[in-house]
Amino acid sequence: MADQSFDVVILGGGSGGYAAALRSAELGKSVALIERDKVGGTCLHRGCIPTKALLHAGEVADSARESATFGVNATFEGIDMAGVHKYKDGVISKNWKGLQGLIKSRGIQIVEGEGRLVSAKTVAVGDDTYTGANVILATGSYSRSLPGLEVDGQRVLTSEHALSLDHVPASAIVLGGGVIGVEFASAWKSFGADVTIVEALPHLVPLEDEDNSKLLERAFRRRGIGFKLGARFAGVEHTDSGVKVTLESGESIEAELLLVAVGRGAVSEGLGYEEAGVAMERGFVTVDEYCRTSVEGVYAVGDLVPTLQLAHVGFAEGILVAEHIAGLPVAPIDYAGVPRITYSQPEVASVGLTAAQAAEKYGADNIRTITYDLSGNGRSAILNTKGAVKLIAEKDGPVVGVHIVGDRVGELIAEAQLIYNWEALPSEVAQLIHPHPTQSEAIGEAHLLMAGKPLHVHD
Amino acid sequence: MADQSFDVVILGGGSGGYAAALRSAELGKSVALIERDKVGGTCLHRGCIPTKALLHAGEVADSARESATFGVNATFEGIDMAGVHKYKDGVISKNWKGLQGLIKSRGIQIVEGEGRLVSAKTVAVGDDTYTGANVILATGSYSRSLPGLEVDGQRVLTSEHALSLDHVPASAIVLGGGVIGVEFASAWKSFGADVTIVEALPHLVPLEDEDNSKLLERAFRRRGIGFKLGARFAGVEHTDSGVKVTLESGESIEAELLLVAVGRGAVSEGLGYEEAGVAMERGFVTVDEYCRTSVEGVYAVGDLVPTLQLAHVGFAEGILVAEHIAGLPVAPIDYAGVPRITYSQPEVASVGLTAAQAAEKYGADNIRTITYDLSGNGRSAILNTKGAVKLIAEKDGPVVGVHIVGDRVGELIAEAQLIYNWEALPSEVAQLIHPHPTQSEAIGEAHLLMAGKPLHVHD
Repeated sequence: MADQSFDVVILGGGSGGYAAALRSAELGKSVALIERDKVGGTCLHRGCIPTKALLHAGEVADSARESATFGVNATFEGIDMAGVHKYKDGVISKNWKGLQGLIKSRGIQIVEGEGRLVSAKTVAVGDDTYTGANVILATGSYSRSLPGLEVDGQRVLTSEHALSLDHVPASAIVLGGGVIGVEFASAWKSFGADVTIVEALPHLVPLEDEDNSKLLERAFRRRGIGFKLGARFAGVEHTDSGVKVTLESGESIEAELLLVAVGRGAVSEGLGYEEAGVAMERGFVTVDEYCRTSVEGVYAVGDLVPTLQLAHVGFAEGILVAEHIAGLPVAPIDYAGVPRITYSQPEVASVGLTAAQAAEKYGADNIRTITYDLSGNGRSAILNTKGAVKLIAEKDGPVVGVHIVGDRVGELIAEAQLIYNWEALPSEVAQLIHPHPTQSEAIGEAHLLMAGKPLHVHD
Repeated sequence: MADQSFDVVILGGGSGGYAAALRSAELGKSVALIERDKVGGTCLHRGCIPTKALLHAGEVADSARESATFGVNATFEGIDMAGVHKYKDGVISKNWKGLQGLIKSRGIQIVEGEGRLVSAKTVAVGDDTYTGANVILATGSYSRSLPGLEVDGQRVLTSEHALSLDHVPASAIVLGGGVIGVEFASAWKSFGADVTIVEALPHLVPLEDEDNSKLLERAFRRRGIGFKLGARFAGVEHTDSGVKVTLESGESIEAELLLVAVGRGAVSEGLGYEEAGVAMERGFVTVDEYCRTSVEGVYAVGDLVPTLQLAHVGFAEGILVAEHIAGLPVAPIDYAGVPRITYSQPEVASVGLTAAQAAEKYGADNIRTITYDLSGNGRSAILNTKGAVKLIAEKDGPVVGVHIVGDRVGELIAEAQLIYNWEALPSEVAQLIHPHPTQSEAIGEAHLLMAGKPLHVHD
C-alpha cells in the first residue's frame, strides 16, 4: 500500500483523459493516468476507429460491386471477416502503440487498474492511492439498452459485440437510427446483409438538420436499407433462426440478429463519485463551462459529462481542463461549433445550428437558408454520389450552420468549422474561389449563392 | 452580314469566359459569348473533368486490386476502356448540359463559330460582327510540344489524344513531370500500364514545395512508376512496336507510346490580338491586376493570360472582370492564395508559399516550418495512405503556406485556403479541435504543433 502525489490525477485513459494528460504534461505538471483497460478508450478500441475501418471495408466492397459503372472489370466475391478484423485490428494496434509511446515520452505515469474516487482528491487502485492537487474524471460511456431488453452478445448485440462478429449476418435489425445505428446499418449493407433500422423518432440521425436526415433516408432507400421511423420497440424473442422484434404498433420483424444502438450512458456507478459529493444527473457528471464539477479541484471531461459524445469533444475538454489547471487563459467551448460526422455511405456532416435551432435563436424572419445540390458539383458526379450543402446564415450576418450529405463529405466540415467559428459572412467565403474540381467547391458555390452571386446555379 | 451590340462580348466559352458571362448577365449586362467548339472549354471537355474521371476509374481499379488488404474478396480483371469512356463522357455530358442550360437561363447569347478580333471592340464570326462596350478575351490554351517533336496522335500523343485512347497501353513514356504528366502516369499505372516519366527539372511537380515533390516521388517509387529527373529529351523515333525516346544523356527508353505533357501555350495566334494593339508576351496576353490588357476596354482571362492555368483561376478572373466592368469594387486576386491540386494517387495539394518562397520573402530566420506525418492520422491509416502536412508560418505571425500529400487530400486544401487568405495565426486554428477521425485532423494537429501545443505528436 502506497500513496503517490501528483499535480494531476486522471481517472480514465480515453480521448478526454489522455488529452488532458498529454496537455498537462506539456505544461509541466506531474500526471498519473489511471486506466482499467487500454489507453485510447472507447474511441480507439471499440468506437470511432474500428467502426470507420468496417465502413471503409464496406466502401471497398461497394466499389468492387459497382466497378462496371466506372469501366473497371472487377468481381466482388464476398467479405472475409477474418481479414476485415485483421485490417481493423492492425489500424487499432498501430494507433495504440503510437499513443502508448506518446504518453510515455511525455513522462506521464500510467496506472493499470480499476480506479475509484475515495475522497475528493484521491483515487484508489487496489491497495494504492493516487492523490492529485487536481483530479479529472474521464471514465467514459457504455452502450445502453432498454428496460426489459436483454443483451446476450449472441443474437442481441451492442456495438462492442457487433465489432467483433466473426461473420456477416444474413439479416439484422438495428434498434436506433442515431449515428451508431446508421453506421452499422451502412457497413452491414455494404457487406451484403439485409438491414432494417427501427427508430422511435420521426427521422434517422434525429439530431441533424431535418433536410440532412431526409437526404440520408433517400440514399438509404436507394441502397435498399430498410427503416421504420416513429416506431417504438415493444419486445424481442428468440426464434429458431434468430430474433423476432415486436413494435408497439404490433408489427413484428425477424432477422438473424438485433443490434441495440439506443445511446450510450455514462460510466459512473460504483466509482465513488456521489460519495465524494460530485453532482450528477442521470448518471452523467454535471460540469460548468470549464468542466468543473461541483467539487473544487475536481473536473470531468468526455462522454462522462452531458455534452456531445464525440472523441474530439473529449480532446477539446481535456485540453481545456489541462490549461485551466495550469492557469492559462481559456475560452469555453462553443459546442454548436463542434463538427459532427456520421460516417455512413453517404456521410452526413454538420457544424453550427440546424434550421430549426437557428429559427428558434434568431427568429424565422431573421435567418436565410440556401441549399446547393451536389448534382451541380463535378467531383461528386465523378464519384457518383448525391447529396447537398445546406447553409444557414443570419440575415445580413454570418453563417450559423452548415449541413452536408454525400460520400466523403466528412472531410469538408473542417472548412465549415472555420467558417462557423470565425463568424464569416457568406460574402467573405464567396470571395475565395474553391479549387476545381473538388467536392469542396460545393461549399464555395453555396456561399456564392448565399452572397447573391451564384456561379454554377440555375436561378 | 449583321452587327450586334452588347455590353460585353466574350471570345471563348471556357472556364474564364463563361464565368465572366454568367456574372455579367447577373449584373444586368447584355452578353454575347462566342465559342468555336463547346462551352465549358478545355476544363470540361479535355482537361480537369475527364482526367479526374480517368483517375477515379484508376482508384476503383486499385481498390479492387488491393481489396484483400481490407478483408474484401474481389478480383480485378482489367479495364474496359469503352466503359471508362462511357462513364467519363457521361459525366462531361451531364455537366455540359447543365452549363448550357445555365447560360441560356441567364439570357446570354451564345454564338457558335470562330471569332476573330477585328478591332478593339469588335469580334467577327464569319460574316457577322459583335461589338461590345467591353470585350473579354478568353481563348484559352493548347498542349504544346517541343521543337522537333512531332505529335502524330498515334504513338506520340498530347493529353487530348490520351484522353480518348481506346485501350490501355502496355507501356508509356510521359514527357513532363508537371501536373498533367503526373496525373496521366498515375491513371495509366492504375490501369495496368508500365509508365516512365521524363522530367527535365530535378523533381516531379517542380512548382510545388520540394518536400511535396519528394513525398510524391517516394509514393510513385512504391507504386512502381518510373521517373527520370533532370533528364532532357533529345529525340524520338518510331519502332516496330512503338517509340524509342532518346535523352540528352544518350540513354534511351522504349515504350508503346509517348505522351507529350510539357506545358500549355496560349491560343492567341491569328485571332487579331496583335493587330488590335493587345500587348502579348510569348503568346500570352499580358494583363494588370484587374485583368485589363493594354487596350482600353479589352480584358483577358484564363489560360490565355500568364497566371496559373487552373479552371478556378479562370472562374475568379472571369468574375473579377465582370464585376470590374459593372463598376463594383473588386480586390485583385492573390495568386499565391489560389489552391493547387494534383489529382494523382497520392494527391498533392497546396496553397500559399513554398518554404523556398517564404524564405525568400521573409528571410529564412523569420519563418517557421513544421511537418505532421500522416502516419499519426487515424483516418489515413484506415485509408492505408501515407503522406504529410507541411506548414509554413511567419515567426510569431500567420500561416503563409500549407502543403499536403496523401490520398484524397485535395479536399483538405479548401480549409487551408481560408487559413492562408484570412491570415490566421497557428494558435487560432489550434483552438478549434478538428473532427475525429478525419484526414482534416492532420491540419489541426499541424497547427497544434506549430502553436506549441502538440496533441498526437511525439516531441
